[in-house]
Amino acid sequence: MSRPRPLVPRPDPADTVGVVGEFGVISRVTARAGTARLAEVGPGDDAAVLRTPDGRVVACTDVLVEGRHFRRDWSSAEDVGHKAAAANLADVAAMGAVPTALLVGLACPADTPAAWLEGVAAGMAAECAPFGAAVVGGDTVASAADSGAVVLSVTALGDLGGRAPVTRGGARPGDVVAVVGRLGWSACGLAVLRRGFTSPAAAVAAHRRPTPPYADGPAAADAGATAMCDVSDGLLADVGHLAADSGVRIDLRRAALTGTFITGPLPQVAAALGGDPLAWVLTGGEDHALVATFPPGAELPEGWTMIGDVHDGEPGVRVDEVPARQVAAELGEATGHAHFR
Amino acid sequence: MSRPRPLVPRPDPADTVGVVGEFGVISRVTARAGTARLAEVGPGDDAAVLRTPDGRVVACTDVLVEGRHFRRDWSSAEDVGHKAAAANLADVAAMGAVPTALLVGLACPADTPAAWLEGVAAGMAAECAPFGAAVVGGDTVASAADSGAVVLSVTALGDLGGRAPVTRGGARPGDVVAVVGRLGWSACGLAVLRRGFTSPAAAVAAHRRPTPPYADGPAAADAGATAMCDVSDGLLADVGHLAADSGVRIDLRRAALTGTFITGPLPQVAAALGGDPLAWVLTGGEDHALVATFPPGAELPEGWTMIGDVHDGEPGVRVDEVPARQVAAELGEATGHAHFR
Repeated sequence: MSRPRPLVPRPDPADTVGVVGEFGVISRVTARAGTARLAEVGPGDDAAVLRTPDGRVVACTDVLVEGRHFRRDWSSAEDVGHKAAAANLADVAAMGAVPTALLVGLACPADTPAAWLEGVAAGMAAECAPFGAAVVGGDTVASAADSGAVVLSVTALGDLGGRAPVTRGGARPGDVVAVVGRLGWSACGLAVLRRGFTSPAAAVAAHRRPTPPYADGPAAADAGATAMCDVSDGLLADVGHLAADSGVRIDLRRAALTGTFITGPLPQVAAALGGDPLAWVLTGGEDHALVATFPPGAELPEGWTMIGDVHDGEPGVRVDEVPARQVAAELGEATGHAHFR
Repeated sequence: MSRPRPLVPRPDPADTVGVVGEFGVISRVTARAGTARLAEVGPGDDAAVLRTPDGRVVACTDVLVEGRHFRRDWSSAEDVGHKAAAANLADVAAMGAVPTALLVGLACPADTPAAWLEGVAAGMAAECAPFGAAVVGGDTVASAADSGAVVLSVTALGDLGGRAPVTRGGARPGDVVAVVGRLGWSACGLAVLRRGFTSPAAAVAAHRRPTPPYADGPAAADAGATAMCDVSDGLLADVGHLAADSGVRIDLRRAALTGTFITGPLPQVAAALGGDPLAWVLTGGEDHALVATFPPGAELPEGWTMIGDVHDGEPGVRVDEVPARQVAAELGEATGHAHFR
């Protein structure tokens, strides 16, 4: 494990939001916004206009607060842009839809470097580009004070392409539960950064720029998924949302989780730091894996791993018959990932 | 003019975002969200799904920061909700569209009263309800620190109902310029509040809860408006946006403005405070009037007042041949309303 190099170049004191002004920043940020394939009117007007081929639009909003979801000394501006976009694009994928556009509301201290905001915009545009999506609108406001945290509120729009939306409430007794994507890598990377290290690179990169399995959301919808969400708060917490909204009990199997998901940097970092990698897998958020339920006997789409099944009963989650809360407590974790707190 | 009563009831220290938790607040706020007529999936899932009858969706985002756009001692929670919604719904109207839904990203200190956030949600829902629109999604995050400003990032969606979107860039030489709605009332109300008064009620109410002429946006589009925007930064600044984006010079007539818009509480308050009401009319923002250009000879829809015309020439705005910047300087104002700064 190696010690970090600084991620924050010395800012130009004449190039802050306060000096350049909001309109100046907005025009520079807009220049980095990319181009949305479906935009009829893009950024710069009162509102954007986007074609909706499906006849419906999928829309969600996620807020990232500096010091809570990212730190400017641990993540570059581009990293923050990638991460903020990913958190929202994954929500679109978890409905079975494909992202089409982002809108970004940003509040920041007046001394925030304009170049940092350009970096955030570039990161968002890069995360959107594979879908032909882009930032089509937004607003930047300097807070009254110089101090304070940067707040990024991102809204993502998406298109269902004729699919029925896959909600959290459709799981039925007899369904199987499956996951695609990484679990615990971001939490592992955070543990590394917290100790002052920047390697293994795979763990740190996973924390800085999650790589949600976007295409697997629509694929799961096509395969008949009955319920789905992304893992942003931690597997136990998010499976708990499926159980609560569907009114079912979900039983997970520890062996299925340890066998498939304790991989990549997790064993090495857990050994070096003296932790249990299963804690990251069960409670680590922000990798934005997808967890879904499928009807009994359905063939799981490629890449998905079966981790449990759905039962009649008191809504909740168990791991090998042990309630989720007790499992998390034994691992020394809350069930839900609380970001940096 | 009367002295204010306190707008902030003593908060229950056991009922803050930090104590109740984000999920607790979100469920209480969601209960106030209203119901969107076009929502197929409403709040509470990864994303909302909204029908888009037009085949396109209009989308915009506006950020309000405490201390900059509102003060909790000058505006009730419901006022802040109304105002945040209005700022965005007016942008939708200014494209010629009808609002269909809001999404709200909220960052606040952990000691923010949960009841205050419920009030904001109720205000937003009330502002949306006449359209059959509602809050369909969002996210609430407590900042790491107890201190700091509340940040509200609101995204509005809208439907064009078959109309072509009216951008800021379509004004042509020969067009006439017209306004519908109030100018300067919010700035007048702010001047009243700043002096510690709470009357005249009409001025203070206009600052707390603007009443944009929403229906006049689609009506202007139907009447052939060539360019349109809402007046959120002040008339001179926003007409300046039309001029810049259309590449035209816009000439306004002072007599048309003073004759029609120095009305309601403006003359009385200006006299009492010793100011020029024309300054509020030309540079006051946040009333969200609509300003549009119409082809020569077009019949203006009901309620619109002609205030000038469009010319070939260096893009910019003049009032009776005097450049906007000079007019504003003579009135002791910047061309653009800078909110509380």
